[in-house]
Amino acid sequence: MTAPDPTPHLQLAVCDYPEHVPQDRWSDYARQQKALGLSAVRIAEFAWALMEPEPGRYDWAWLDAAIDAIAAEGLQVVLCTPTATPPAWLIRTHPEILPVDREGRVREFGSRRQYDFASPVYREHSRRITRAMAERYGQHPAVSGWQTDNEFGCHDTARSWGGASAAAFPAWLQARHGTVDALNEAWGNVFWSMTYQSFDQILPPNLTVTELNPSHLLDFYRFASDTVRDFQAEQLAILRELSPGRFVTHNFMIFESGFDHYAVSQGLDFVSWDNYPTGMLEFFSGWGSEDLKTRYARTGHPDYVAFHHDLYRGMLQRPFWVMEQQCGQVNWAPYNPLPAAGAVGLWTAQAWAHGADTVSYFRWRAATMAQEVMHSGLLRHDETPDRGHLEVEALDLTQFPAGEVRARVAVLHDYESLWIYDQQRHAASLSYWAQTVAYYGALRSLGQDVDIVHPDHDLSGYDVIVAPALTLMTPGRAAHLQDAARHARIVFGPRTAYRTPSGRTPEDGQPGVLRDLLGVRLQNFDSLRPGLHVTVTASSEDSSGQPVAAQAHTWTESYRLAGAQATHAYADGPLAGQPAVTRHGNVTVIGAHSEALIRSVLSAELAAAGLPQQDLPEGVRVSRRSGVTLLQNWTDDTVHLAGRTLAPISFTVTHD
Amino acid sequence: MTAPDPTPHLQLAVCDYPEHVPQDRWSDYARQQKALGLSAVRIAEFAWALMEPEPGRYDWAWLDAAIDAIAAEGLQVVLCTPTATPPAWLIRTHPEILPVDREGRVREFGSRRQYDFASPVYREHSRRITRAMAERYGQHPAVSGWQTDNEFGCHDTARSWGGASAAAFPAWLQARHGTVDALNEAWGNVFWSMTYQSFDQILPPNLTVTELNPSHLLDFYRFASDTVRDFQAEQLAILRELSPGRFVTHNFMIFESGFDHYAVSQGLDFVSWDNYPTGMLEFFSGWGSEDLKTRYARTGHPDYVAFHHDLYRGMLQRPFWVMEQQCGQVNWAPYNPLPAAGAVGLWTAQAWAHGADTVSYFRWRAATMAQEVMHSGLLRHDETPDRGHLEVEALDLTQFPAGEVRARVAVLHDYESLWIYDQQRHAASLSYWAQTVAYYGALRSLGQDVDIVHPDHDLSGYDVIVAPALTLMTPGRAAHLQDAARHARIVFGPRTAYRTPSGRTPEDGQPGVLRDLLGVRLQNFDSLRPGLHVTVTASSEDSSGQPVAAQAHTWTESYRLAGAQATHAYADGPLAGQPAVTRHGNVTVIGAHSEALIRSVLSAELAAAGLPQQDLPEGVRVSRRSGVTLLQNWTDDTVHLAGRTLAPISFTVTHD
Amino acid sequence: MTAPDPTPHLQLAVCDYPEHVPQDRWSDYARQQKALGLSAVRIAEFAWALMEPEPGRYDWAWLDAAIDAIAAEGLQVVLCTPTATPPAWLIRTHPEILPVDREGRVREFGSRRQYDFASPVYREHSRRITRAMAERYGQHPAVSGWQTDNEFGCHDTARSWGGASAAAFPAWLQARHGTVDALNEAWGNVFWSMTYQSFDQILPPNLTVTELNPSHLLDFYRFASDTVRDFQAEQLAILRELSPGRFVTHNFMIFESGFDHYAVSQGLDFVSWDNYPTGMLEFFSGWGSEDLKTRYARTGHPDYVAFHHDLYRGMLQRPFWVMEQQCGQVNWAPYNPLPAAGAVGLWTAQAWAHGADTVSYFRWRAATMAQEVMHSGLLRHDETPDRGHLEVEALDLTQFPAGEVRARVAVLHDYESLWIYDQQRHAASLSYWAQTVAYYGALRSLGQDVDIVHPDHDLSGYDVIVAPALTLMTPGRAAHLQDAARHARIVFGPRTAYRTPSGRTPEDGQPGVLRDLLGVRLQNFDSLRPGLHVTVTASSEDSSGQPVAAQAHTWTESYRLAGAQATHAYADGPLAGQPAVTRHGNVTVIGAHSEALIRSVLSAELAAAGLPQQDLPEGVRVSRRSGVTLLQNWTDDTVHLAGRTLAPISFTVTHD
Ligand SMILES: [Zn+2]
Ligand SMILES: [Zn+2]
Ligand SMILES: [Zn+2]
Repeated sequence: MTAPDPTPHLQLAVCDYPEHVPQDRWSDYARQQKALGLSAVRIAEFAWALMEPEPGRYDWAWLDAAIDAIAAEGLQVVLCTPTATPPAWLIRTHPEILPVDREGRVREFGSRRQYDFASPVYREHSRRITRAMAERYGQHPAVSGWQTDNEFGCHDTARSWGGASAAAFPAWLQARHGTVDALNEAWGNVFWSMTYQSFDQILPPNLTVTELNPSHLLDFYRFASDTVRDFQAEQLAILRELSPGRFVTHNFMIFESGFDHYAVSQGLDFVSWDNYPTGMLEFFSGWGSEDLKTRYARTGHPDYVAFHHDLYRGMLQRPFWVMEQQCGQVNWAPYNPLPAAGAVGLWTAQAWAHGADTVSYFRWRAATMAQEVMHSGLLRHDETPDRGHLEVEALDLTQFPAGEVRARVAVLHDYESLWIYDQQRHAASLSYWAQTVAYYGALRSLGQDVDIVHPDHDLSGYDVIVAPALTLMTPGRAAHLQDAARHARIVFGPRTAYRTPSGRTPEDGQPGVLRDLLGVRLQNFDSLRPGLHVTVTASSEDSSGQPVAAQAHTWTESYRLAGAQATHAYADGPLAGQPAVTRHGNVTVIGAHSEALIRSVLSAELAAAGLPQQDLPEGVRVSRRSGVTLLQNWTDDTVHLAGRTLAPISFTVTHD
Repeated sequence: MTAPDPTPHLQLAVCDYPEHVPQDRWSDYARQQKALGLSAVRIAEFAWALMEPEPGRYDWAWLDAAIDAIAAEGLQVVLCTPTATPPAWLIRTHPEILPVDREGRVREFGSRRQYDFASPVYREHSRRITRAMAERYGQHPAVSGWQTDNEFGCHDTARSWGGASAAAFPAWLQARHGTVDALNEAWGNVFWSMTYQSFDQILPPNLTVTELNPSHLLDFYRFASDTVRDFQAEQLAILRELSPGRFVTHNFMIFESGFDHYAVSQGLDFVSWDNYPTGMLEFFSGWGSEDLKTRYARTGHPDYVAFHHDLYRGMLQRPFWVMEQQCGQVNWAPYNPLPAAGAVGLWTAQAWAHGADTVSYFRWRAATMAQEVMHSGLLRHDETPDRGHLEVEALDLTQFPAGEVRARVAVLHDYESLWIYDQQRHAASLSYWAQTVAYYGALRSLGQDVDIVHPDHDLSGYDVIVAPALTLMTPGRAAHLQDAARHARIVFGPRTAYRTPSGRTPEDGQPGVLRDLLGVRLQNFDSLRPGLHVTVTASSEDSSGQPVAAQAHTWTESYRLAGAQATHAYADGPLAGQPAVTRHGNVTVIGAHSEALIRSVLSAELAAAGLPQQDLPEGVRVSRRSGVTLLQNWTDDTVHLAGRTLAPISFTVTHD
Repeated sequence: MTAPDPTPHLQLAVCDYPEHVPQDRWSDYARQQKALGLSAVRIAEFAWALMEPEPGRYDWAWLDAAIDAIAAEGLQVVLCTPTATPPAWLIRTHPEILPVDREGRVREFGSRRQYDFASPVYREHSRRITRAMAERYGQHPAVSGWQTDNEFGCHDTARSWGGASAAAFPAWLQARHGTVDALNEAWGNVFWSMTYQSFDQILPPNLTVTELNPSHLLDFYRFASDTVRDFQAEQLAILRELSPGRFVTHNFMIFESGFDHYAVSQGLDFVSWDNYPTGMLEFFSGWGSEDLKTRYARTGHPDYVAFHHDLYRGMLQRPFWVMEQQCGQVNWAPYNPLPAAGAVGLWTAQAWAHGADTVSYFRWRAATMAQEVMHSGLLRHDETPDRGHLEVEALDLTQFPAGEVRARVAVLHDYESLWIYDQQRHAASLSYWAQTVAYYGALRSLGQDVDIVHPDHDLSGYDVIVAPALTLMTPGRAAHLQDAARHARIVFGPRTAYRTPSGRTPEDGQPGVLRDLLGVRLQNFDSLRPGLHVTVTASSEDSSGQPVAAQAHTWTESYRLAGAQATHAYADGPLAGQPAVTRHGNVTVIGAHSEALIRSVLSAELAAAGLPQQDLPEGVRVSRRSGVTLLQNWTDDTVHLAGRTLAPISFTVTHD
């Protein structure tokens, strides 16, 4: 494993596609990139058809020249394995590489990601092209590192619902369960006579007459996730062999749920992600209100972006890269507004404050062809510097020193909980991400720096641990949390420990193995359609003078006390009089979905843990790194904070 | 045919799945069921894979033991044929059993109902497993009766749009039409050159370029309905042969439109249905307003539920069972709120008042596995009694004596009218069910007990007959209605007699053969998009002081008088000045969709027939059975009615 | 080429289907049609299965008789080739004729248009039946002309996404591009490794994993359009050969975008179209507000209808027919309201004023069978005259003299611009039609008569030329516009010249080859989600006292001046301070989507060109033909205009 050379402060880079422009532009571009203060250029993404124009015939001349042009300016080169885009000759020779969508349709050549991760044929070609590239460039002095493929899972491609994946699924099941009887028991297949007699009877869980077995789905998602991990591991092994001393990373995507990112991160030197704040809000945050989407249309929502920074910093507990950073408008959301003036600078500063070591803008020049002609770059189509370019130019990178982000608060996150939660939402407008981000946003509104951590990872460093939606519980995880509760306060959200590792419910009711820790048993849960609300009241008046009643919506659950005490109860509705929030020693459970309640309980917990907090208005955020504090104003209004005046859409750096 | 032993009052039962829990729980459960006052347990639904774990090898040991455990407490056992869930070995050996959806996709194994009713292979296996069960348990002393399959048509499974159904359709058409020329004439295939030269050219009416021929659709729906009927008849014959003295029923589903329930009810001892009031409102009542869905989220709508009770009581004109009664939250609607406190009791009492002899709760213990883990039961996952259990415990069954429901008012209902109406709605927000329920609800708001009756059945017992949407008219039906008009007042809604049995319009215009009875000819109809309204005004001031003008929406039609007189006319819009409501002797036609108008005209007709009526507020309802009156309050407010005070969500029994 | 005999004034006709009624009605109908003042009857549309009941056996007897019955009254007959409805025997023998939808599903027999234009088998049968009809009736004295097929492209049938079209596409590509390298360059296939090695690797652009290459799509749309053109050309050649002296036309459909209508019009004597004003609004105008749809529910929107008249008059720059004119309610929209009293007369008058020589009502008698039973005709099902019949009877045709429509204003329209615009809308609520109609409607609200013209056609006759959405630009087109600017004022809308003929962007940025003419370079564009607005302010106060600030929504773009001056600038938002509207000599560019701004700028341009203008309120319109002016009131209110009082939904003819 090889980390990039440490740098004293944030570095900038850019994604470029030299093959999209005439070769005579390459040196000019490199000079301009250098002049802008960049230190690296990512290239060769998607360029398989150029590198291997026909089966087995490689053409490296153009790429040699492209690398040389960049290196000539002292810029580093990040290379990508081109496996996100298998060329036409490969697909037409081996159509069995193509993935199948949930509706059973083959997903065709003509855009990108048209491969099934489980295809043995594609695996062979993936290894072959990776080896060919690594042999050619693995030790090139200008090459500092590698990106594998591009945005695994993007466009819902982590899973293929037929073809090679369907063929590989039974063997994976056999490896996991041993016998088909064990599988039947794990899945509860006695229900609806779904019992299988042999593994080869089992298909992916699509096109069923009505709702499918969530355990079937959970295992299919695990299978797909393992397959993504194995696919990358093969490339990784080749790159380690042939490109020593270079880093390997992958650029993960926004709110991508198709695989376990913790597993796929293993073996990488650091993690990267692709940060498109306005597209994220418009395209991915389906649960957000229209009003919120309009208000943040030109900046994205600060907490959604920060969540991803903290999420990906937490994968390997180490600084990360933003491999693609929006620097103008995107082209793939229903609406693609221009970023507000100042947004590109603000995004860059925020990325640094949350642990980015490098921010790499996407892309150098706006594409003049194909799918991305309406997407911006640092240069316009006519090669003039676009709005983002000017903001990048204005950055003073010495403001952004390298170093650690130190958080005393952890938010627990787990992809299996996500999968099982979202398969049976029970309240259509709620989702794992929506519930998780609600807790995360409350913490940020209280001025906290937050680590996002896998529940099975080391939790010893935290004073407050928040588990917004830890739906899936194992005995080991329960013991681990019990351990953590010895030194930290823990807050759980609704649906905690609803499900066992096989996707069933605990035979002795929720929260199963977590009962002793929580000191409660689940009494009832309630799914509230839009327009339905219930009131939650605190048992005692809140000493901090905070509101003692809150309106809950969308989801409530109540508890029988088994050691815990109730700090809040329902005041009306079917659960009237029953505990809504409970405390058992260090451990709190919040049963109601209510932004005000969540914020109020978390604030009390932070206070109890002795953590300083701030009462930040919406759209105003504070982040800290390496002894430096970043004050951020994501609103259109001038804001006064900590003795500073923050202009609309701006940031200020202060020192401790 | 064998009726269950008569009982003096309402009986309670429960649906249980012993195979879902360890065998050592069975006796305990039976004891608890007995203690709760239940008299029967329905089991073995969906258990094919356990009864026949591999082709031809039966395992009855577990079911013997399960029946014994129940019988040991003196409880009766209702057995189900398990054909709603063909096992994996059968499907993988005979994939041709699988049905095809409207989009042409095979519907896969992995949930339930994955069979095509027309499959000869599946028919053979359906008969075989039915015979095997009936041979084993047909004369078991604890077995009181049988349920065939489960919820025919649920998940849109009554029709398969390819495969075995496509193969069987031509022969059905030949049997119906004799010659292809007759079919071409009946369907009007001269239109758009759709003329066929032979029956085997004819496919199911899906995947056409644009709108399909409604006559083609009507016959396909008839074919599918006949196929469901024949499928059940085969099981019925076997059960009659091998299980003498036991009842046979089927549990029909909410707003299910995939087959003619009158035909499928024939031969059963009594009809059952599955009553999920909150799921019904949220999932099935697409035409309802969001506001209404929010108001009744925790109880369901009283009239929607009552409609089904009256509908299924009318199938065989005899008391029925609620085979599955919601007793907590469901899991299959977009939102699945907890029932209000009191709702389970209220639903049970309402079911009785509308003619239920047995109410069987679904289900005993909440499932800890698979698709239904988020669905409630009388016991929670942890085996503690859930909210519904407590309400059942509190019921005094002697309040609910057995006996007849006697209604003086009939609402006519016919599945062929439904099919042809909904195929060409002409106003997207209107539907057969929405139009029918609007009339039904108006009658209930006037305090009427109502029978829902097939238009071709005996109508001699009624004073007022309401035909909300009798779209399809035959000469025989017209004569039958003419007969009925001699002794009863009849009210018709819009689109009456728009179509002939072949799905065409009458050659001499609407209402065709009904013209003499109605005394009008259709002048024009009008489909009003949301936001468009027209005013309907009574010709003379209403003596009862009721409103003389009403706003109509969604649908209006006008008439030329041919014997009738106009009682209301349009005051504006394209039909201004034309008759909106007409009267011809005993016969009234209402042409406008207006809740206020419908209620006002029906009230006048009830008065003219000398029937007592009440002016009930929304959510307050009255039902009568066996000399007992059930006052129901479905609202959150305390209500005063007939000198009684009704608490929120409650019922009161009074005696005549 | 043969024009119909000139007539002194508007002629009326009707679409009839004698085969839908008993033969004994035919003479009666013809007498009634004559009495109503009609001069022609269109028949034989869709009647293939009757003309050729089995392969190769023709039955002309019925059609002979039908023609004779019409001819006996002195009415002319328009015959249709019946190729919109290949009969069952042909489809079942050659299922490869069937088209494939975008989802990859075969579109089945059972309605109409079930053919792939590229099918060689179908082509042969199309020629054969055309020849058979033309041999039989080509010189029949009563036959005045022919309609080819019916509504090419209706129901999204211009393109087949598999089958015969997929097979034919590679050869078309080869013919266009010569080499696959040239194609790769044109499409920019270097992007995402989409490079092809041979033409036969290329499929239609559907079922791709994510967004497809817009250049791929553009060529597929061109291919499909050429195929429609060639399909018709084959029929045309046969009709020219065998039916000399008769006209040939085709009836185009509303907002149909599946092929280049200019190309498909070539060779016709005149163009026809099918005018369904209420269905057009409800079904096709997806971008319109609900409020607008409710307001015009009973008339359709005057500008949407007028747009089509002017569009189709412009195809061959010559008067046209309305081949199907709505004369009552339709049956194919979500809501199908009755037309307002007066609407049929108003539609007829408007059609004349915009250049219709014949208006042919659809249909004579309402169909009593199949898909169209809920569609109206001049006669009801019961053969009584329906509302439309009465309005037609009341028309005085001498009010509507034949002659030219003379417009000084041209709106430019181009199908390739439409295709490329709509493939990458970038703002979901905007579209080519929405943007184009916004400009067209502004001109009509200013009292202008407008020609809609292809940008490459002769522009010499116009004083003001408006190019609302001329997205696709070629060097030739740029030169042509440069030419036009010598004598005319030209106004361009947003996205002008964004794309080259291959669908790429200009390498030197937008507006590429149009830069000199416009005197600007594109600076930035902005896509505004609903709720986002920016303000546009005029640089100087408008001398006409018109508003100096306007709110823009949905789309804005700004410019760098390169010779032009800014007449308006953005006052807020990301483009604040940048030009929003520019003028360069005669040439104006409007960058913001704002109805008020568009109207104000166009008004100023009309004034500068010396064209008289009127300030017409919404729903009130004026059109002129042959020295006669038609004042139209499409509103429910009485309106005073030009000294006249216009009743609600009415027209008045005045003479210059
Ligand atoms: Zn990317
Ligand atoms: Zn059920
Ligand atoms: Zn038509």
